[in-house]
Amino acid sequence: MLTQKIKDKTVTVAVLGLGHVGYPMSTLFGKNGFQTIGYDINTQRLNDIKQGKVLLELTSILPTDEQEKQKALAEIKKNVQLSNSEEDLKNADVYVVDVPTPLKENETPNLVFLTNTCKAISMCLKKGNLVVVESTIYPGATEEIVKPILEESGLEAGKDFYLSFSPERIDPGNKKWSLELIPKIVGGINKESVDVACLLFSKIVAKVVPASSLQVAEATKMVENLFRSVNIALINDLSKFFEKMGIDTWETIAAASTKPFGFMPHYPGPGVGGHCIPKDPFYLLYKARKMGMNLEFVEEAAAVNKNMPLYVVHLIEDTLKMQNKSLRGSSFAVLGVTYKKDVLDLRRTPAKTVITELCKFSKDVVTFDPMTTESYGAKTGKTLEETIKNKDCIVLLADHAYFKENNLEDKINKLSPNCCVVDTRNFVDETKLKASILCRCLGKPVKSGQ
Amino acid sequence: MLTQKIKDKTVTVAVLGLGHVGYPMSTLFGKNGFQTIGYDINTQRLNDIKQGKVLLELTSILPTDEQEKQKALAEIKKNVQLSNSEEDLKNADVYVVDVPTPLKENETPNLVFLTNTCKAISMCLKKGNLVVVESTIYPGATEEIVKPILEESGLEAGKDFYLSFSPERIDPGNKKWSLELIPKIVGGINKESVDVACLLFSKIVAKVVPASSLQVAEATKMVENLFRSVNIALINDLSKFFEKMGIDTWETIAAASTKPFGFMPHYPGPGVGGHCIPKDPFYLLYKARKMGMNLEFVEEAAAVNKNMPLYVVHLIEDTLKMQNKSLRGSSFAVLGVTYKKDVLDLRRTPAKTVITELCKFSKDVVTFDPMTTESYGAKTGKTLEETIKNKDCIVLLADHAYFKENNLEDKINKLSPNCCVVDTRNFVDETKLKASILCRCLGKPVKSGQ
Repeated sequence: MLTQKIKDKTVTVAVLGLGHVGYPMSTLFGKNGFQTIGYDINTQRLNDIKQGKVLLELTSILPTDEQEKQKALAEIKKNVQLSNSEEDLKNADVYVVDVPTPLKENETPNLVFLTNTCKAISMCLKKGNLVVVESTIYPGATEEIVKPILEESGLEAGKDFYLSFSPERIDPGNKKWSLELIPKIVGGINKESVDVACLLFSKIVAKVVPASSLQVAEATKMVENLFRSVNIALINDLSKFFEKMGIDTWETIAAASTKPFGFMPHYPGPGVGGHCIPKDPFYLLYKARKMGMNLEFVEEAAAVNKNMPLYVVHLIEDTLKMQNKSLRGSSFAVLGVTYKKDVLDLRRTPAKTVITELCKFSKDVVTFDPMTTESYGAKTGKTLEETIKNKDCIVLLADHAYFKENNLEDKINKLSPNCCVVDTRNFVDETKLKASILCRCLGKPVKSGQ
Repeated sequence: MLTQKIKDKTVTVAVLGLGHVGYPMSTLFGKNGFQTIGYDINTQRLNDIKQGKVLLELTSILPTDEQEKQKALAEIKKNVQLSNSEEDLKNADVYVVDVPTPLKENETPNLVFLTNTCKAISMCLKKGNLVVVESTIYPGATEEIVKPILEESGLEAGKDFYLSFSPERIDPGNKKWSLELIPKIVGGINKESVDVACLLFSKIVAKVVPASSLQVAEATKMVENLFRSVNIALINDLSKFFEKMGIDTWETIAAASTKPFGFMPHYPGPGVGGHCIPKDPFYLLYKARKMGMNLEFVEEAAAVNKNMPLYVVHLIEDTLKMQNKSLRGSSFAVLGVTYKKDVLDLRRTPAKTVITELCKFSKDVVTFDPMTTESYGAKTGKTLEETIKNKDCIVLLADHAYFKENNLEDKINKLSPNCCVVDTRNFVDETKLKASILCRCLGKPVKSGQ
């Protein structure tokens, strides 16, 4: 019986999809002594993992002590078998689905990875197995989309196999709240499914929280990410207004943060990125529309955030104008390409839009990011120095620690003493820049005298 | 010099406007040994204060121990002189403005109380005085509206007198975060004004936070209250969707609240009330429009919240329909009229709209609220029992502790065994109600079988 096998850790867990969630997830099972199959159809990704190229994504679950870390890595290597063969999946008792659930061009859910994965599972599914979906989907989707495909196996969900939805809550780069410490919401198609999935996850995370239904578990993830979408939209919207009013948004947020209740700070930025915040609203909106409901407010929030990269381009244009320059013919250095600081993740990064727009006006756009060489059609600078040398405008999009560690302000002073700087993260220390350099920050007024 | 007089507590403080902010504020000055003039033009309010009728508003600043409380009240009585005479204001060194800043019919700022108060102050203003505005206003208003009126005195702000804006942050009914414990943001027209206002407030609250300008202090309050407006709008919007999806919004919020970062719970309700959340967005929108900016997202949030009372009426209608009844001709008990639990405050209470709407359809609408006899045109029940007796529908709008203490569910079972209940606060314990009673809760699906 599955319950006993989980207790004995003799269960084999297949994690399907080894992206920013599935990779750490499979590692966590392996680290805790579970025989684990890490499955992905992308052989490049499998190779990157094998070669330790994306170890950074495990930061929050590996010990910091080097000796301990090597011990954990050895245990993981012993327990986790990487594979792109569906054949290997047949040995599993538990299937954990961590595939991307992106959007189509028309902003509706693209569930092809999810459905393909479910088809693969249905080919291997055996009586008494457990299937857990962790990928973010709209409320109702596990029952409407996942269940029928799995039942093509001839087995019945809730009777012949356990079916659970348990949303991933990983926060890339968050060192305080590692995967192991974040409580895990567990919904299921019936109580038995909730119980067995709770038992499984209780072996690898500190706390499990049973939900009364699949839909509540699905909706929980939506509530969490819409909270972020809406609050980021609010502060993005306000930052434009405050900037125009001559008010420093960042100081205002710091002041508001002294309120000990009823407030949580969010910060303006060049737009939301990553796999969740930009697209989850559209998952919810898709389902709402199918039910004949308009969630205009949620829609408006998504629109505000989606428009931010273009606002940044407008800010760049406006700043150049103050120096009697224009987008056309100016040279640009774009610093930071990933969607946020100190992560490798490029998905839906606002940098893509900003760079693409700049490239429409200028052939001299160079990007630099210590995390990636992706440049979306612009040139890729080999070094920070080379990138920022003799530029008209330096745009900071991701506030990687690297830039501070490499004294960005000093380098700008030396290499582009007559440039302007557009800072979308309140990261550049203006007081360290030469007086000749015009520095504009998103959400901050232009300094008088400039 | 004012600084020395504040240090010696020989300064006389006039608090203008003794409402939900000014009354506790004047009390706090008095409690801390400052000679205080509590000024209000409303003699009814002055009498209510004198006769101890609104002592509840001081809950969070009075000691709980009865002997200590009496000692504090004696000290307050000794130090605070209540007055409606402008003549008395002449003795003050410090003027603290706590008047209402409501909206006109067309949702634009009604600043008549503020301007009249400033005029009164300008008649008494002397060199070296301090004026502090605590009333919520849009960014820029202290400089644009308050300053010119005060300068009709012939004195110059920042030179002849100190001018500060320090937003009130009181949370009525919040027992944990009393007025004394909430950090106080202090902006000023110049550094001297910030310093002297900080010194003053440091004598009565635990922490002061200087802001770099009047506008930052004004904007801080906007950010705080828009945060609430927008998050309440999100959950109100989602609750309608979840209800239709068959998802329990309240369980979902509880589950999301287990996320240890990046989330703060807000709850659906019959609409926002009180003096801040419903109107502050319109203050900001007014200023933004004047500057040619559209903050559609902020506007949409305000609209979602404003529409909630009508949604509650729709929910009532829908619930009655399930019992083959209609709004027309049904009898209603409305429980809770103030804008939230356990407060006396009626300002912008959503109950007004709900009751007014119900009265359009029925002559038998009775309200009951242990805090108030206001009934907005409906009948006022003398007791809870009398109110809920033989009703078709019992609507709970404010979740006063009184209702739990008086075993609401038992009483409903006895007095209206065939009614339906519409609960907007997830307050009524359905499991305690007879099976014959249909109970609907905002944001919760209809139970199967009903």
